[in-house]
Amino acid sequence: MATFSELAPHLAETGRALHARGWALATAGNFSAVVRRDPLVLAISRSGVDKGRLAASDILQVDGNGLPLEAEAKPSDETVVHLAVVRERGAGAVLHTHSVWNTLLSEAAGDAGGLAISGYEMLKALSGVLTHEHTEWVPILPNTQDYKRMTRDVVDALAKHPGAHGLLLRGHGLYTWGRDLQEARRHVEAFEFLFELTGRLFTASGRLPAKAAGVGAGGTDGDD
Amino acid sequence: MATFSELAPHLAETGRALHARGWALATAGNFSAVVRRDPLVLAISRSGVDKGRLAASDILQVDGNGLPLEAEAKPSDETVVHLAVVRERGAGAVLHTHSVWNTLLSEAAGDAGGLAISGYEMLKALSGVLTHEHTEWVPILPNTQDYKRMTRDVVDALAKHPGAHGLLLRGHGLYTWGRDLQEARRHVEAFEFLFELTGRLFTASGRLPAKAAGVGAGGTDGDD
Amino acid sequence: MATFSELAPHLAETGRALHARGWALATAGNFSAVVRRDPLVLAISRSGVDKGRLAASDILQVDGNGLPLEAEAKPSDETVVHLAVVRERGAGAVLHTHSVWNTLLSEAAGDAGGLAISGYEMLKALSGVLTHEHTEWVPILPNTQDYKRMTRDVVDALAKHPGAHGLLLRGHGLYTWGRDLQEARRHVEAFEFLFELTGRLFTASGRLPAKAAGVGAGGTDGDD
Amino acid sequence: MATFSELAPHLAETGRALHARGWALATAGNFSAVVRRDPLVLAISRSGVDKGRLAASDILQVDGNGLPLEAEAKPSDETVVHLAVVRERGAGAVLHTHSVWNTLLSEAAGDAGGLAISGYEMLKALSGVLTHEHTEWVPILPNTQDYKRMTRDVVDALAKHPGAHGLLLRGHGLYTWGRDLQEARRHVEAFEFLFELTGRLFTASGRLPAKAAGVGAGGTDGDD
Repeated sequence: MATFSELAPHLAETGRALHARGWALATAGNFSAVVRRDPLVLAISRSGVDKGRLAASDILQVDGNGLPLEAEAKPSDETVVHLAVVRERGAGAVLHTHSVWNTLLSEAAGDAGGLAISGYEMLKALSGVLTHEHTEWVPILPNTQDYKRMTRDVVDALAKHPGAHGLLLRGHGLYTWGRDLQEARRHVEAFEFLFELTGRLFTASGRLPAKAAGVGAGGTDGDD
Repeated sequence: MATFSELAPHLAETGRALHARGWALATAGNFSAVVRRDPLVLAISRSGVDKGRLAASDILQVDGNGLPLEAEAKPSDETVVHLAVVRERGAGAVLHTHSVWNTLLSEAAGDAGGLAISGYEMLKALSGVLTHEHTEWVPILPNTQDYKRMTRDVVDALAKHPGAHGLLLRGHGLYTWGRDLQEARRHVEAFEFLFELTGRLFTASGRLPAKAAGVGAGGTDGDD
Repeated sequence: MATFSELAPHLAETGRALHARGWALATAGNFSAVVRRDPLVLAISRSGVDKGRLAASDILQVDGNGLPLEAEAKPSDETVVHLAVVRERGAGAVLHTHSVWNTLLSEAAGDAGGLAISGYEMLKALSGVLTHEHTEWVPILPNTQDYKRMTRDVVDALAKHPGAHGLLLRGHGLYTWGRDLQEARRHVEAFEFLFELTGRLFTASGRLPAKAAGVGAGGTDGDD
Repeated sequence: MATFSELAPHLAETGRALHARGWALATAGNFSAVVRRDPLVLAISRSGVDKGRLAASDILQVDGNGLPLEAEAKPSDETVVHLAVVRERGAGAVLHTHSVWNTLLSEAAGDAGGLAISGYEMLKALSGVLTHEHTEWVPILPNTQDYKRMTRDVVDALAKHPGAHGLLLRGHGLYTWGRDLQEARRHVEAFEFLFELTGRLFTASGRLPAKAAGVGAGGTDGDD
């Protein structure tokens, strides 16, 4: 297991690379890796930082309750989700991305509760998958600002779908993980490839939702 | 507040990064940041420079009337729009981008006067937005080469939509802003993500306009 | 006017940048700039070099007949087209790109003989265009391996459309130019932006041609 | 012919460049070049390495039976396919990419057994093709995890289509080759350009398959 001072620059570089691909624009996304198992210590990107300029100094350490080891630090609100994935899957790293295609698919398939992807060689980039004939079920959970509820939903989905390598939050993005940061990053790339592929097929076959941003003649902001 | 010599290279680097994404190709786009409030001094990219090679030496200073502090300098014609946004919103930086998706959406929703975007987690990258349930109304204004009229339209739209974080000029591009350059850049990334998302949904559901570049059998240029 | 030793690395860098955007993949594209007017000497990329690795040493000099100043050098077959544009327009640089969108549009509008693009602010990046209300007519010429015929067609099109800033060869790509390399590059960026925009609108409104790569059950190569 | 110590960094750089384009994400793709003909020695990327971090030390040498020259090394399972292409075509390098567009087309045209592409200038980037009027037939073979069967299918397809410059494995990706690494890389770029072009035309004309990732209401993984 790598030390915090080894993990922090790797997490920062991972964040900048995902930003460069357009999978973590603005402040979207957060990234973590396990520093110690017992007691649990997690290295995770701090709240609200632009991912294009994520530096090692933007990575902080939290304990198993999500509390920062250094008092003044502010971890992401979604730290509890990362901790849940680490516990339920024994993951060594957890990556959360917001891409255009994963957001579109989460809306297109959200009412069905998930998305099945099968038949592609790229599925073999997911840990333990040995054939393209594999069907990967990607659970899609409702989005919420109630992080306790989100964590409960994630724990339930992980229990119900023990073979899943990732899950989508509707209108929000992908959570995937791996035994280490490198495997988690491989899973991001594999999923984002499969999402773009599926999204383009949905576009061509009219399966993207008509719902979405409305065009109104009015002109009042929702939050005015 | 940063000094001009600190802001100029940051504005130049911002311009080159937006060019690299394809959001400010050729001479499109212009970028500004407040150097001083009272009297107002604004650092802004000069007129007509290719954004892929924007250098700190291409950033100049203008006063509150848009007049360059150094006589021989030629600021962008749209400097007056930047000044209006700075005054109306108290912004510390203003960024203007021309992307394919923001141009397409400005045509698709231009007749309706604006575009409502709601339900996406990425909305939380906009300053003060705390939930994906937010509805962002993006006003769309007619394009014009009459910069006094454009400025008046922008001032009116900002007054009418106090919660708006950006606005579109039809066939022309996005204006967004922030309390500083970093926040303005985060807003560009959030809006461009949301525009690509919305544009792909419009494509799939037949809501992009049939209007657009005509295919003619003739062969006379409009300006011959 | 720049010297050959100044122009060669700029042309090479331009080629690599266009390759990076995907507008000159593989050996596609060629790039030239005028070294001297009288007698005419043109710096131009040599034949068959991959544009991702274009180096200053891949730029050679040709005279007004397209003959290389150094005997062993092999200029592009399309050198004659570059020379025609230089003569007819007084251009200082000529750039030829093959992008996916310009190829698609050249097929979609090829039977009509050209494409009219109007109403976009980006048109103002074309030299001398002062308003988005400009209509740019882009002539589309048939593709051919007969470079004398191609040159004649280009000369005719330039004479017939004195306001055109570029032209398309069907299934082949864009020729655009400028008074210097920087202006020509600005024109490439403006056109490719407008082509992507128009191509996405054509996609959404069913105006891309059904023709195109056929799917056959046979299995014989055309050139077997 | 280049030595192994010359080829290894070139293969690694090629892999990273193809990853950067999104044509070899995650562990997808593998890349080889001939070190010696008699007896045959092939330099090839090792199994399971992420292509974004492919280093010269990830390139190993195998003999004509696909056995590594160094006992502990693990070459890709698809090494046998590379060896078959080298033998049947006399190729000096073989590149295998997984792009979104090549995967989509392999599904769209898979039942027809192949895809015919004609009429584009970019076809001239394929070795020996002298005119855009060329028709390139790209055979599409079924995907399988039985590498002996895959090799037999590839050998048969190469014999049946002596003019083919590449072939697609369904849902899996492109194999192309060249007399050396540079030519093979040029062929990748030409094919991926032509695939994106064709894929966009198929999208616009409703020729992408409705099949594809299913949206199920269930929630069981195929491999649970």
